[in-house]
Parts: sequence; C-alpha cells; structure tokens
Amino acid sequence: MTRKIAILGATGSVGTSTLDLVERDRERFEVVAVTAATKVEALADVARRTGAKLAVIADETRLGDLREMLAGTGCRAAAGEESLIEAAAGEAELVIAAIVGCAGLTPVMAAVDAGKMVALANKEALVTAGEIMTRAAQANEATLLPIDSEHNAIFQCLAGARIDDVSRIILTASGGPFRTSSAELIAGATPAQAVAHPNWSMGAKISVDSATMMNKGLELIEARHLFGLPSDRIDVVIHPQSVMHSLVQFVDGSVLAQLGTPDMRIPIAYALAWPERIATPAQRLDLAAIARLDFEKPDLNRFPALRLAREALEAGGAAAIVLNAANEVAVASFLAGRLRFPEIADFVERALANNDFPAPESVADVLAIDRATRSRVETLMTEGCA
Amino acid sequence: MTRKIAILGATGSVGTSTLDLVERDRERFEVVAVTAATKVEALADVARRTGAKLAVIADETRLGDLREMLAGTGCRAAAGEESLIEAAAGEAELVIAAIVGCAGLTPVMAAVDAGKMVALANKEALVTAGEIMTRAAQANEATLLPIDSEHNAIFQCLAGARIDDVSRIILTASGGPFRTSSAELIAGATPAQAVAHPNWSMGAKISVDSATMMNKGLELIEARHLFGLPSDRIDVVIHPQSVMHSLVQFVDGSVLAQLGTPDMRIPIAYALAWPERIATPAQRLDLAAIARLDFEKPDLNRFPALRLAREALEAGGAAAIVLNAANEVAVASFLAGRLRFPEIADFVERALANNDFPAPESVADVLAIDRATRSRVETLMTEGCA
Repeated sequence: MTRKIAILGATGSVGTSTLDLVERDRERFEVVAVTAATKVEALADVARRTGAKLAVIADETRLGDLREMLAGTGCRAAAGEESLIEAAAGEAELVIAAIVGCAGLTPVMAAVDAGKMVALANKEALVTAGEIMTRAAQANEATLLPIDSEHNAIFQCLAGARIDDVSRIILTASGGPFRTSSAELIAGATPAQAVAHPNWSMGAKISVDSATMMNKGLELIEARHLFGLPSDRIDVVIHPQSVMHSLVQFVDGSVLAQLGTPDMRIPIAYALAWPERIATPAQRLDLAAIARLDFEKPDLNRFPALRLAREALEAGGAAAIVLNAANEVAVASFLAGRLRFPEIADFVERALANNDFPAPESVADVLAIDRATRSRVETLMTEGCA
Repeated sequence: MTRKIAILGATGSVGTSTLDLVERDRERFEVVAVTAATKVEALADVARRTGAKLAVIADETRLGDLREMLAGTGCRAAAGEESLIEAAAGEAELVIAAIVGCAGLTPVMAAVDAGKMVALANKEALVTAGEIMTRAAQANEATLLPIDSEHNAIFQCLAGARIDDVSRIILTASGGPFRTSSAELIAGATPAQAVAHPNWSMGAKISVDSATMMNKGLELIEARHLFGLPSDRIDVVIHPQSVMHSLVQFVDGSVLAQLGTPDMRIPIAYALAWPERIATPAQRLDLAAIARLDFEKPDLNRFPALRLAREALEAGGAAAIVLNAANEVAVASFLAGRLRFPEIADFVERALANNDFPAPESVADVLAIDRATRSRVETLMTEGCA
C-alpha cells in the first residue's frame, strides 16, 4: 500500500532526512505535496525529484520564480498560507510537519482538523497550542506521531502498552555544552560556546536552547500534551551520551527505553511507516563500542530554564506561549551579542511574571499572545539597556 | 476478571515471588493448584493460604503427610507425575512453570498441550525441548510467557512489534564474578568464588553457570526458540550492572531495552497480568542514583561455555540436551570439589564431541537423551580420575 505524504518544510533538516528515506522506498511512499519558507530553488528541485503534484512557497514574492522553475513538470506552484493549508489538509494521508516556529501552527492545525496522521517535528504546535491541538486531534481522529527523538522514543516504548499502566515518563537530556561548567563559567558563555552541542548537529537557536536546557523544558511541555501525564510524572535525567533517547516506567517497575545512534532518520522512519517499520541506512548502535552510558540529576540552579518551563506547564493557560516567545526573543538577542547567557532565563522569568493573558482558545489566540509577548519582551530589553 | 493460576514449584524462589504478587491482588488472581517437589510443610502452608483446590507433592512418599496437613481444608492432596500433569493441564488458565530441572519438562509440556498460558521459569523446557515445545505451543494455541529477566525483557520490547521488523536480539550478561579475572585466576577458581554472583541472589548451580557464562549460553538457546531468530541474529553483550535486562534492535536502527531493579517480581508480574500490567512493590529504578551503565564484548576465550552453547544451538538435534546435561553433571562435580573450574567446559565440549543421539521427537526422547548423557559424562569423569 502506498502512503501519500505531504512534507511541510521540505528543504530543512527534517524535510531532507524525510526525502532521503522516501526516495529509498518509492513503492511505499508517494510525495503529493511539498512546501518551503523561502528556498525556492531547493523546493523546485524537491518537487521535481519526488514528482509532487503541489509545491508551495510560503513567501508569496517567490511564486513567480517557482512557477517558472516548475513549468512543464506537472507540479502546480502555489504560495502563501492558504496554499500551505491546502498542502496540509489535501490528499496526503501523512503530513510531515517540519516547518520551524509559529509559522507552522496554522498548517499543522489544518492537518489535525482534517484527521490526518501528523508527524510532528514542529515544537511550537504542542508547546504553545498543546491543549487546542490534542483536543482537535481527538475530535477529528488525527494521529500525532512525534519525530523529536525523545518523544519518538517514548512513543515507541508505549507501542502495545496501555497508558493507564504508565507510572512515569523519563526524558533524557544531554545536558548541553555547559553540563559540567560552573555557574561562573556559564555566566560568561559566548554564543560560540553555547552553540557547540556535543552530540547532535543542530541550528543555532535550538543549540542555545540545549545549552540553557530550555529545550528540555519545551520537550517536557510537549510530552505532557502528547502523552497526557501530569508534570509531576514526567522526569528529566541527564544522559550526556544521547544514546538512550527517553524512557517509560510502568506500574510494575519495568522501564522501557529506546536507544539509537543520533540520526534523525530513525525517528522519522518510525513516523513514516508507523505502525510498521522500514529499514534505514542509519548506523547501528554498538553498545560495547560505546562502552558506557552515564546518568545524573539535572541541576535546576545552573539551568533555571528547566524550572521555568515546568512552572509554565503547571501554570497552564497562556504561560507556555509566553515562555516560548520570550525565550525566542531572548535567545536571538543573546546570539546577536545583546544579552549575557544567564539573562535569557532572566527575561523569560520576567515575561512569565508579567503574564496576564487569558487561556487561548484557538490557534489565532495563540499567535496573538505570541506576538504580544515578543513585543513586550523587546520593550523590556530596551528598557533594560536604557 | 479473575485469572485462574496453577503454580508448579510453589515453594521455590519463583513460586514464592509469584505468591507474594498474587496475594496482593485476590480479585484478579485465583490460585487453583500448587505443587512442590519435596517440601510438604511449605506446600501445605501455601495451599491453605491461597485456598487452592489441588496440592501436589512430587515425592509420593510424602502424600500421607500432605493429606494429614490438608485435612478439613477442602484442598485435595495428591502426589506423583500424573497429579503434576493434572495440576498443569487442569482448570488453570495460566500455569507458572517454576519446577527446576528436567523434572519440569513433562508438566510444562502438559500445560502447552492443553493450550494454556505458560509462564516459563523452567529453563530446561526450551533448552532441551525447544522445538518440540514451540511446535506444540503453536499447534495448541498455547502462549509462552518467559519469566527469566532477559527473555521477559525481550518479550516486553516486542509487545506491539512485528517479528519481521526485528533485526537482532541482544541479551545482556553480568559477566559473573570472573568478568575481569585473568584466565589464570579463573583456572584456580573455587566453588565459593564461583557462587558469589555480583547482582542476583541465586542458587549454587545457576551461580556457577553465571560464572562460566553457560547461563547466558542456555539463554541464547532459549531465545532462539522463544523468538524464532537464528543464532547469528542473537548477540550477547556484557553489562555488569544488570540494570538493562536485554534489548531488541529493529530494522530501522531503533533499539528498545527493558530495564529495572534486580527483582524477579517485575518479570513475574508481567507474565501474571499479561497483556496488562499490575503494580508491584519492587523498588523503582533510579538511573541518576545508578549513575553509570557499562557494556563490553564477551570474551569467548576466557568463557568458552558461551561458544559451546552457540555451537550446540547451531548443531541442532540433540546437541542442546547434551550441552545442558553434561553441564549439570560437571557443575555438580565442581561444587563437590571433584573438578577444576575450566574442566566444566572441557567436559561439556567432550560430551558434545561424542554426541551421536538422533534429534528428539518427544519429551520422552529428551529425557532419555538427558539420562544417557549424564551417565556418559559420569563415566568420562571416572575415567579421567582413574
């Protein structure tokens, strides 16, 4: 049986890994729609290679270029949000939601509302609109398949299990580049030091999130929505080798863990073929060669972002949107050299303290709170520098 | 729904752990039959506590005592193999097969032939009669639920999975008390040194098997029959902490592992409630407190028993019966101070070299080959000492 796939964010890292897998198994997968934010050449190339019927560029000013590049291929060129929604809610059975940031929210929601299988690589969908998204998924019988290595690990450990039998979820965290650094050293961390992630090759924003451990905080919030367990039943354990991607503890004391080499094609493949599995070219895990796996408790004093994320999760309402937006603005300022590393968490904490937004009831509400928070945090920063 | 249970070997270690769990959940479990080899007082006590309807003592000379002890309880006292078979094949839905040694074979086979769920703690059933047992299980729609921590771990990792998606099974082994010892030191090992297992509290025979690593060799053979993978897709990795009980690698590169504290109530609980789970009082795993998990390749030179077991598995036919019987005789001689530690493997190897038995076609064949091998190995030893 061929599975029809839409790839939202086809030119990014997850999109590229998805294509690598899909192109190895043309019998099983048919790419029907691909989208990109601005990279029109790369998008046109992907559309031609996959034989997609629809290619959407978010940036409407590039539609003319895309049309020209796809002329005579049989692939329709389109642009803008309405077309992104069409790609997400159209004929695809499985939607790979790999658009980065809040720009991904509306297309993801469209896929969920259309009852699709949605392979989620967009973190914001669950962090900022978790309740809205999971409620819609339930109402429309959509299936959320997490691609993030940690949540995918948990999802794999839960296959064949009843959620009532789960006692805890344990997210592993590499601890980032400052795991063993003193608070003083962390206070003086430069952007170059902060983006040097030990195990995964990632973009600058997410690398800084890994250095502050906000990344794990956001994953904690995602886990809560994906798996329906309360905050006090989701733990974080530091595991510097990033070999064990996360664990589930059951009521009988059994713990299941998913392990693997750090290759995003493994979790993507699981989502692509779910509930079956497909072969991947990912390197096999060799435990004897790795020799040693370490575990330690996270230090909430040196990594306050993790505490803030848990507080935002427990506060509910708009808090997670504020946390996420404030963090994005603060990380951008840090990367631009305008904030010191510990000020990232400081500004997030101040934004959360100022949170007076009502709980969002729609993706439009989420986007409005997101924008308002960004503008507030930017004002706070300007005041701080005045 | 109450599940009716027979406990074969109710007074041993697995039997006692089973009773501990069953007595915590009287709504869910009803013990209908209990058996023991010789401990008549303990058996009568268990029968009274559980309200079992049938209590069987294997040793027929103790039937009078058992009858007397159970007078007026409503529990029928019985003795001998026919009654063991009745306990196994009677009204129980789930049979806990915890009789030690080849004495367990006939009752296990009776439970399998009767299409029961069989929670297997008896190693000999699969080591010596693996093909006969699994063929009968298939024909009679019996379900084999492994209780051994390693096989139970694999069974848990396979829940919700398709066996076609499995690429390898990885059995973990503690490495035993001589993991880091030189070949010279191992050559001079005393029984006291050999039975000092680092992680599990076990009987003398199985502790020596852990020291020679024959235990892992026998588990390799069991895994082959339980999960249907060929020998070259079942690996062994040394993991001294015994926290990760075994792993399954899938075609996509994902690896699932089951972990837990070393408490047999965890795998027993999984078998008892399968496919659901029940709470146990077992201590919860705390990875941060454990801090470190190590892995290394097994050394087949210092631990030839592992190589011999794999060779026996690959040879097929009667080889695994010969391996098991020769090992039992040799271990008993070692414990009695009549063999040096490395001679255990030597005698197993000589017994395998002399193996000219036809493949067994029934449990009776298995038992005959077992007896003949024991007598041959004893003769070999006498000659060796002459």
